Amino acid sequence: MLRRIPPLLSKAIHLNPRVVAAQYAVRGLIPMRADEIKRALATPEGKAKYPFSSLVYCNIGNPQALEQRPLTFFRQVMSLVDAPFLLESEQVTSQYPADAVARAREYLGHIGKGTGAYTDSAGYAFARDIVARHINERDHGAKPLADASSIVLTDGASTGVRLMLQVLVGDAGDAVMIPIPQYPLYTVQIALLGGTPAMYYLREDECWALNAEELASVCDECVAKQNATPRVLVVINPGNPTGGVLERGVMESVAKFCCDRGIVLMADEVYQENIYAKGKQFVSFREVVLGLPAPYNTDTVLVSLHSTSKGIVGECGRRGGYFCCTNFPAALREQVTKMCSINLCSNVNGQVMTALMCSPPQHGDTSYGTYWAEYNGILSSLKKRALLLAKELGSIRGFSCQPVEGAMYAFPTIQLPERYLQRNTELNLKEGRTLAPDARWALELLEKTGVVVVPGSGFGQRASTLHFRTTILPPEEQMERVVKAMRSFQENVWAKYA
Amino acid sequence: MLRRIPPLLSKAIHLNPRVVAAQYAVRGLIPMRADEIKRALATPEGKAKYPFSSLVYCNIGNPQALEQRPLTFFRQVMSLVDAPFLLESEQVTSQYPADAVARAREYLGHIGKGTGAYTDSAGYAFARDIVARHINERDHGAKPLADASSIVLTDGASTGVRLMLQVLVGDAGDAVMIPIPQYPLYTVQIALLGGTPAMYYLREDECWALNAEELASVCDECVAKQNATPRVLVVINPGNPTGGVLERGVMESVAKFCCDRGIVLMADEVYQENIYAKGKQFVSFREVVLGLPAPYNTDTVLVSLHSTSKGIVGECGRRGGYFCCTNFPAALREQVTKMCSINLCSNVNGQVMTALMCSPPQHGDTSYGTYWAEYNGILSSLKKRALLLAKELGSIRGFSCQPVEGAMYAFPTIQLPERYLQRNTELNLKEGRTLAPDARWALELLEKTGVVVVPGSGFGQRASTLHFRTTILPPEEQMERVVKAMRSFQENVWAKYA
Repeated sequence: MLRRIPPLLSKAIHLNPRVVAAQYAVRGLIPMRADEIKRALATPEGKAKYPFSSLVYCNIGNPQALEQRPLTFFRQVMSLVDAPFLLESEQVTSQYPADAVARAREYLGHIGKGTGAYTDSAGYAFARDIVARHINERDHGAKPLADASSIVLTDGASTGVRLMLQVLVGDAGDAVMIPIPQYPLYTVQIALLGGTPAMYYLREDECWALNAEELASVCDECVAKQNATPRVLVVINPGNPTGGVLERGVMESVAKFCCDRGIVLMADEVYQENIYAKGKQFVSFREVVLGLPAPYNTDTVLVSLHSTSKGIVGECGRRGGYFCCTNFPAALREQVTKMCSINLCSNVNGQVMTALMCSPPQHGDTSYGTYWAEYNGILSSLKKRALLLAKELGSIRGFSCQPVEGAMYAFPTIQLPERYLQRNTELNLKEGRTLAPDARWALELLEKTGVVVVPGSGFGQRASTLHFRTTILPPEEQMERVVKAMRSFQENVWAKYA
Repeated sequence: MLRRIPPLLSKAIHLNPRVVAAQYAVRGLIPMRADEIKRALATPEGKAKYPFSSLVYCNIGNPQALEQRPLTFFRQVMSLVDAPFLLESEQVTSQYPADAVARAREYLGHIGKGTGAYTDSAGYAFARDIVARHINERDHGAKPLADASSIVLTDGASTGVRLMLQVLVGDAGDAVMIPIPQYPLYTVQIALLGGTPAMYYLREDECWALNAEELASVCDECVAKQNATPRVLVVINPGNPTGGVLERGVMESVAKFCCDRGIVLMADEVYQENIYAKGKQFVSFREVVLGLPAPYNTDTVLVSLHSTSKGIVGECGRRGGYFCCTNFPAALREQVTKMCSINLCSNVNGQVMTALMCSPPQHGDTSYGTYWAEYNGILSSLKKRALLLAKELGSIRGFSCQPVEGAMYAFPTIQLPERYLQRNTELNLKEGRTLAPDARWALELLEKTGVVVVPGSGFGQRASTLHFRTTILPPEEQMERVVKAMRSFQENVWAKYA
């Protein structure tokens, strides 16, 4: 039956249709165009072509690419752990603060000689111990206490999301409830697994609040109309891209809902240190769940994710992170353990960074002062930029922006003139594309101003609304350029198409 | 339709059946039992219970866990890249060789200030350049030359395997041709994707040679009987677990077969530096493919994987690696790029380690002598152990062991007395287990001697044959204990059950 396939046909490699269908806007069309422009700007012709000489990347939460400095103590310890022979030279160690040297020795005492070896599949036991202690402190001793066996160290939070969704979602009959707007990692992983997304909408006019009352009807409708059973409910708190911070009461309702329906609660808490709004504070879902009355405190199955990429650490490239398992039944735990062992282990530098994030210098340590000065400097600058950006964006014609209570993004609504929307339809026809109006807007903003943002359609939004996501990360002087660029671009759009 | 699910039922979390069905022997039953014993040995009661005081982990290719030293130059550069402020202190830099300092400055010049930032999705461009240059040199300038765009940096080779299989395998209609025995990463990833494995058997009595003549019939049979079309053919060279090194002529036939059938050739070449047998050398599939006459040189779609975990580097925990794309059609390349962007990027320390592996100190550099002394020391010790182990194992009753031509493992056949096999069947019935006879054997070897190996059933083997895989990595004095333990254990088995 088989015959030699002619060479030309053999080029038509079969591709997994789930992969082909998957979409990931954060690094899609706009950033690809941005990279082209960046390359062009390096040439004299390119320089002449664009009315700006550099790009401002507001599309990715990548703090150190936007001049945020790493926390010195963490890097000091990491360099010593990477090169333990440095500890043998007094001339070297004398250049380090005593607590960095002591910390490196402590970690190396646990790691032993094989600092380049695979670790336990779930990560170094000592690092998981440190994470668990940190969680117990953060959650005010909520019982039962977390311990090393509750923790899995991962390559960033994304790997944890992928692993957990893979364990829980098998096919189109399995749904994942996701907030809209959401971080597109969720929709893309659901698409890759062939699962079904079930969307619940956040309330933009209430600082993107989650309405727990609506969850039941979204769930019922998913079963009735999409023929899929929700297995997981994702909450991103503080919100990405929304910047909203959840209230405890809402969280309790969400947890109860999940428990009642036998749905695993997936709490994406990677922005837990990024809180800016007065009177708001981060409460973990773990603390909330364990504080509920029986049976909710024991029967709500919760996975909580964190990362070294965000917060004040901002070490995205280390790909450090963890997830914490609360009330996992044994059968689920067993599959998670197996998946970890298939992945061998997360990278050791990410593991060390995660341990450091969870155990900063303590009062009395040499680096205590420097560490907190750096930490508070970054946090207060982020806070300032969060307030400033929301305020400034809100004053632009056709923009409306909720306060950035937390996380690293603003997600303003944009209104565009009817004629701009019509023009997009016409251009799409002409170009053979299907750009959403906000994608067209973001593309033209980029071409005209050099500012890179992500269109709201990449995150999901209510029908007939348009948004974009911008990080709050550009340094204060660049932020001014960003706001000015958006203002004049948007005013031009209105002047031209209104 | 929906009702409140009683709390107890809600514990029955739905699990992805593909995940539940997936098996991964390398970190399965035996190593879990080993971990229990290791914990027990830390207590006085445990110590009394076992006739050994420590375990020898021969189950994982994890060199630095078995006392292999890291290459000093690599760690020196990495520590400086991790903590660039070290470069500002003469007192520190004077402790480093000049070329380590220069190299760190060079890398940091490319990376810029944001050393903790996400990189390009495919990895730092400068690191991909270095990898491409290394490949071109290794492959004797085979044209077209590889460049940065041919390379994707990954978290170890496993991540590359997973990504490429995910892009190419959608469901049970898509098959992957794999060698038997194979590294179980392949079967487990195929299982997770719901794909179909199509097995081709290596010839044990010819140093585990690959018989290219058989590929066509395996492929045809897969289409006819399994109703699946092979999309990918995996070759592991040097072989894991077999230790075999392929001949160029065989590789040419394999490549032609793949090209003729429109099958993507996946070359797992992570052991390319681990060659021990006299007269054998590593030839990359890339060099072979590009050296073929038209249309094979342009139409064979090849992905070649490498890692920093094996070779002489042995930095498993860094999770560094890359894959190189040869003759990728644009549509395939596009999906690979998208999958990389979903994964954000691989970890920066792994990327730096990969760049270092591909550009060791050159003649005239300060570290040149030390580096090659360390390198050759490790390589010649591995060679010695490879020869010794194969020879010693071959002399044990009921064992027969092919030469370890390359990689890091021996995979001897074990013959067991008929009564031992019967006893296993009886014990399985009694225990409610389904242990394969070689798994029982490996479990009892562990309990009696403290030596951890992986049963052949975890890798696949011809019906009615039994094997186990052991690494060649224990230091020479431990190796003696391993061989002695196996010999006396196996002689006891024969004495008792023959």
